[in-house]
Amino acid sequence: MLPMLKLYYSPGSCARASLIALAESGADYQISRVDFSRNAQREPEYLSINPKGRVPALATGRGILTESLAILGYIAQSFPAARLAPLEDPFAFAQMQGFNSYIASTVHVAHAHGRRAARWSDDPAAQATMQAKVAQNMLECFQLIQSSMLKGPWVMGEAYTVADCYLFTLSCWLEEDGVPLAKLPAIQAHHERVAGRPAVQRALAQEAAGTTQV
Amino acid sequence: MLPMLKLYYSPGSCARASLIALAESGADYQISRVDFSRNAQREPEYLSINPKGRVPALATGRGILTESLAILGYIAQSFPAARLAPLEDPFAFAQMQGFNSYIASTVHVAHAHGRRAARWSDDPAAQATMQAKVAQNMLECFQLIQSSMLKGPWVMGEAYTVADCYLFTLSCWLEEDGVPLAKLPAIQAHHERVAGRPAVQRALAQEAAGTTQV
Repeated sequence: MLPMLKLYYSPGSCARASLIALAESGADYQISRVDFSRNAQREPEYLSINPKGRVPALATGRGILTESLAILGYIAQSFPAARLAPLEDPFAFAQMQGFNSYIASTVHVAHAHGRRAARWSDDPAAQATMQAKVAQNMLECFQLIQSSMLKGPWVMGEAYTVADCYLFTLSCWLEEDGVPLAKLPAIQAHHERVAGRPAVQRALAQEAAGTTQV
Repeated sequence: MLPMLKLYYSPGSCARASLIALAESGADYQISRVDFSRNAQREPEYLSINPKGRVPALATGRGILTESLAILGYIAQSFPAARLAPLEDPFAFAQMQGFNSYIASTVHVAHAHGRRAARWSDDPAAQATMQAKVAQNMLECFQLIQSSMLKGPWVMGEAYTVADCYLFTLSCWLEEDGVPLAKLPAIQAHHERVAGRPAVQRALAQEAAGTTQV
């Protein structure tokens, strides 16, 4: 038997998507909370797990996986009975990966210019101008998702996939980023649809209860 | 027979990775150059192909795919005889996708703060501070790739994959971003190894010769 999967996460981070996918998949898994309040993601213990110093990371019997998109795809492929991705259809699978890649490389990046602006400028005044643009950029990203990507009721249409775990996770950030969910009716309906799933409620409870291990 | 694949690209952009993968795959394909000099990516004709107004986009018999990572995965899955990804091994496939996701969501984003800083701040002075940090961020990204991701001789080790097409494409930007390739010996050796492949030379010639169609 392979060692149990272990997800390294921080509450409220994008690792929520991977935690939800694990809960949906039927996998046996453990979670390990990385203490961002003391910057544990930058300490040698965690850097030996993920040299990028970020979450999520997923320890498997074969080694560590990083990046939400890759972990989500791995969970879907490793637990095919849960039907979390269109595994037999390369075109549909690529559509789903394209959606997830947009979330990772454009939407998450738009959000990160709030709290993590120092990654891209050393000047506090410049960082403030980046923070000031977060609400506009997040609104534009989600308007585009609403108008041209979200097929409904789920991202890919009739089938719930890991893309829904990922979209839900980023839609949790909208209010804090200054975008009222009510401005995006189809996103809000999707958010509530995902939130109502039993596996999602279990994942959110685990996330909140997880004690610090790294 | 399915309609021929058609790649929408701009010379020197990240679409180069998809063009190289097509050349490696043995697929029949066409290319269509999007004229960024007249901002054609923001015109209705192209927005009807890709509402995000970016390249690459790949027209297939089933519809349009966007995002480099998704197009690269699709090419690898659709032309398995070319062995451009570890298709039978979900862990290795996820490792490759994790690498490609890092390229898309961190490295490409670091580069984009040079020419595309206006995405994240409306203030020209702030944009200048972002541009000033590009060389440092790109160097740090590639140092991390060199020290902890690139297995050698190829990204994934002994097997050449679409991750090599993607890494090569971004390493083409280093000199312009103020990072001498000579500072990164393993990256430079990888760059030259990829550049020497006949399919890559064909792709670069096609890219340069492509006439504007959109």
